[in-house]
Amino acid sequence: MNAFTPDLAAPRWNRLGAKRDAALARARAVSPTREIPPERIVELLEAVIEPGDRLCIEGNNQKQADFLARALVQTDPRRVRGLHLVQSVLALPEHVDIIERGQVERIDFSFSGPQAGRLARLVEGGQIAIGAIHTYLELFARYFVDLTPNVALVAAQAADRHGNLYTGPNTEDTPVIVEATAFKGGIVIAQVNEIVDVLPRVDIPADWVNFHVRAPTPHYVEPLFTRDPAIITETQVLTAMMAIKLYAEYGIRRLNHGIGFDTAAIELLLPTYGEELGLRGKVCTHWALNPHPTLIPAIEAGWVESVHCFGSEVGMERYVAARPDVFFVGADGNLRSNRAMSQAAGHYACDCFIGSTLQIDLQGNSSTATKGRIAGFGGAPNMGADARGRRHASPTWLKAGAEARAPGAMPRGQKLVIQTVETFREQMQPTFVETLDAWALAEASGMDLPPVMIYGDDLTHVITEDGIANLLLCRSAEEREQAIRGVAGYTPVGLARDRQAVENLRDRGVIRRPEDLGIDVRRATRDLLAARSIKDLVHASGGLYDPPKKFRNW
Amino acid sequence: MNAFTPDLAAPRWNRLGAKRDAALARARAVSPTREIPPERIVELLEAVIEPGDRLCIEGNNQKQADFLARALVQTDPRRVRGLHLVQSVLALPEHVDIIERGQVERIDFSFSGPQAGRLARLVEGGQIAIGAIHTYLELFARYFVDLTPNVALVAAQAADRHGNLYTGPNTEDTPVIVEATAFKGGIVIAQVNEIVDVLPRVDIPADWVNFHVRAPTPHYVEPLFTRDPAIITETQVLTAMMAIKLYAEYGIRRLNHGIGFDTAAIELLLPTYGEELGLRGKVCTHWALNPHPTLIPAIEAGWVESVHCFGSEVGMERYVAARPDVFFVGADGNLRSNRAMSQAAGHYACDCFIGSTLQIDLQGNSSTATKGRIAGFGGAPNMGADARGRRHASPTWLKAGAEARAPGAMPRGQKLVIQTVETFREQMQPTFVETLDAWALAEASGMDLPPVMIYGDDLTHVITEDGIANLLLCRSAEEREQAIRGVAGYTPVGLARDRQAVENLRDRGVIRRPEDLGIDVRRATRDLLAARSIKDLVHASGGLYDPPKKFRNW
Repeated sequence: MNAFTPDLAAPRWNRLGAKRDAALARARAVSPTREIPPERIVELLEAVIEPGDRLCIEGNNQKQADFLARALVQTDPRRVRGLHLVQSVLALPEHVDIIERGQVERIDFSFSGPQAGRLARLVEGGQIAIGAIHTYLELFARYFVDLTPNVALVAAQAADRHGNLYTGPNTEDTPVIVEATAFKGGIVIAQVNEIVDVLPRVDIPADWVNFHVRAPTPHYVEPLFTRDPAIITETQVLTAMMAIKLYAEYGIRRLNHGIGFDTAAIELLLPTYGEELGLRGKVCTHWALNPHPTLIPAIEAGWVESVHCFGSEVGMERYVAARPDVFFVGADGNLRSNRAMSQAAGHYACDCFIGSTLQIDLQGNSSTATKGRIAGFGGAPNMGADARGRRHASPTWLKAGAEARAPGAMPRGQKLVIQTVETFREQMQPTFVETLDAWALAEASGMDLPPVMIYGDDLTHVITEDGIANLLLCRSAEEREQAIRGVAGYTPVGLARDRQAVENLRDRGVIRRPEDLGIDVRRATRDLLAARSIKDLVHASGGLYDPPKKFRNW
Repeated sequence: MNAFTPDLAAPRWNRLGAKRDAALARARAVSPTREIPPERIVELLEAVIEPGDRLCIEGNNQKQADFLARALVQTDPRRVRGLHLVQSVLALPEHVDIIERGQVERIDFSFSGPQAGRLARLVEGGQIAIGAIHTYLELFARYFVDLTPNVALVAAQAADRHGNLYTGPNTEDTPVIVEATAFKGGIVIAQVNEIVDVLPRVDIPADWVNFHVRAPTPHYVEPLFTRDPAIITETQVLTAMMAIKLYAEYGIRRLNHGIGFDTAAIELLLPTYGEELGLRGKVCTHWALNPHPTLIPAIEAGWVESVHCFGSEVGMERYVAARPDVFFVGADGNLRSNRAMSQAAGHYACDCFIGSTLQIDLQGNSSTATKGRIAGFGGAPNMGADARGRRHASPTWLKAGAEARAPGAMPRGQKLVIQTVETFREQMQPTFVETLDAWALAEASGMDLPPVMIYGDDLTHVITEDGIANLLLCRSAEEREQAIRGVAGYTPVGLARDRQAVENLRDRGVIRRPEDLGIDVRRATRDLLAARSIKDLVHASGGLYDPPKKFRNW
């Protein structure tokens, strides 16, 4: 056989470039300039989007390319059709409207909280195929492999005349979307709030962007991470005290918190209960976290050295800008967030992830998926998974790994993955279940696997008002099951515990009750919170935090 | 207790900004402009670097900020001292010279191949403390948490008068280094090959960069990924045939290859043996890979849909630019690589990682670490680890997961992690060992854990000239050990196999010999390679590939 001789004539090598050139030529008929008049935007979308294109409508956790999304649902469904949506969040009604209009064939995404019910109905009705539900970094990774967008519709604060973009604090997903699209023959269209002569800083270079349009209204931003301290319960104060005891035990310095009230309570106990325990500088110094308003008291009390943010938070802009030693801030004085890099930080550079969930089964698998809602898990799977590629040691990681290792096994560290829950959630639904609702959802929606948020073999601790179960110390599936039952309170799962086994586990320190941890439960009152209202947070910030109207009641 | 009241006066919140402002003021005394005359560069470094600073000298796999590294070793050790190096690669002699000069206290890095011996001697002599050896993405993640550089010395192809940077095809680590440094009060200095009026494209915006300097010589680039087909052995052809059978069995479409000759052989068999098996379009379509010259024949034969690159490869520039449907190419016509995003792609969007190693133990732990060399593992730990945060399914991932799951366990997919090795390596050293040399290295260097490249519980298959061991199908540590012994040939580990156990494993398909896979070993000759020399690769590229001189022998 001879050495391989290529047929250089046969394949064409620039189909993507030719496709882009043709789209740009069609676009020139709509507007000869890269700045598009807002009233021509529907025409522009019809000119550049081809049937079957992979399309990303920037829908972040927070920032939304809402003007472009509204324009998209005004396009002619005979022209703009067969789309494959590849975007992290389906948040706006228009994201689902475009599906209902029959213009979308397939979606790959990470989170669809507000639209989860509508989406489930469309899937059950066979109107849409779900490729998969990803964790954010996984979806971004696929942008560079097999889900590269052909067209990206993104949002920024401002553009200059050349088309350079300034995102302001909500940089979020924009860099990764634009990079993947611009460098693989795609087209990038940005909506901006304003067009200026000189940008405060450049977040996205102009030659990565094809068109920009000044939207008639500023892009929508959702204050998704604001938790009003007024709503935190005394049970949440108790579980937060237990969490802080765990932080002390493992010396957890680098971590990520979920976005619930359970973890907001922890943030608000650091400058009070944590201070009492002498933990300042010893735990919670480095974070991958959005600028949670409930972190303000801990920052002001000198607990926090560094916070890298996935996105920003409405009302936190001035506060963040005034704390550049803590946050990542540009020469313009504003936050630069970056969801891709913050997810990488959460995965590889944090020793602990703690969050909440709706259901936990007997093996410790947990999920927020419920029948009739296809919501996804956002960043939790990435941060709530042991980072098996990690090779750097920290005392926290080594201690967790040493607890988990069987004798004779290769030594290795482990990430702490903690679920903090109440045994019953709203309407007295038990959090602990024999079978996750995820199984029924998978069945109804034709998924390959039940949508599990955090797998039991990645979970290390469960905290409830009943105590802490340390799953690292369990040596069999049976022990694990009893450890979980042992903190499941009066739920059916808890009541079915083997009392003797649970007492043995308590003797071994696998299960610890609040009193075993030296916690006086009578102190678990709201008085222990460093801020008990949004107003307290504003005060703690020295007036720099400017909460959205819906959180102001004074 | 009252709600927390902050002491707004006590902490200072802009120490980093003040530090940067002071450094910039000192720099202005060296040069009033952001373009620094090359002869003033040592002075500039002395002006901006403070004792104890975290410093990143951009040392990539390939591109090196070599002019700045040479300048650094000319600085006054009384002024520039106590540094903490945080950079992915220690490749240049200067990277270690600066340690020997006593200017560095601590290093955190990923790979130090060329300097591994010198580094080990410095560690053993107590002259340097190693923070940790990371996988790339893990180190980048820490840039945003607890290893943010204070000063970054980076390399680019060109700057314009404003200070915007163009990296050319070797973008590599630059974006992630600069982003972390520039947005946390740090200083960025770029060496460039040329200063031009208009850049072909902007890779790094000017307001993320403080200074640029035109280096007297172009930055060094190492052709690290060029494997001469002339050196591929017939044993490697045989193991490559087995690997392709495995690719067919699992339908592996999205993957990453290591950089050895074993995997180069696979690349060169795709258009011949793979074609014969009818696999085009069914396997190896999407890659996270540097532009390996040995992939040219497969690309030309129409096997490859997409390749995202960590970096570039010397001589491949024109070829890549001519294949923009396959590679990520900018409007300027050149590759845009990005190590951070390609590592994310390798972790989360690939179904398979295959590479080679120096040693494998009885549990399947593997390492390239040997006593007297502290080298690190680069990207292998990140890509050779099961991505437990992954939630999207593919047939490949589901099949691997189904093989691995115990009955009753929550179903889950799994990444294929394959080691392909010869049973003996150079100088008849056995690849299979009872105890990894990593244990002795850890002891000698005071490491917390033995430096394992890929952990046994992440490894799914071992390929040797003896056959394939499928570790997914092993149901106990004993089975796993016998499966590994069963493909370990005439090494002491192989000779100590339990013959009956190994035959049982073969009956169950856990071990498969070449003949079990339908491979005629007589066909495993170099004739099967699609290119048998660098010259063949140039021919296959239609003359677009321009190999470095050292690979030209015609």
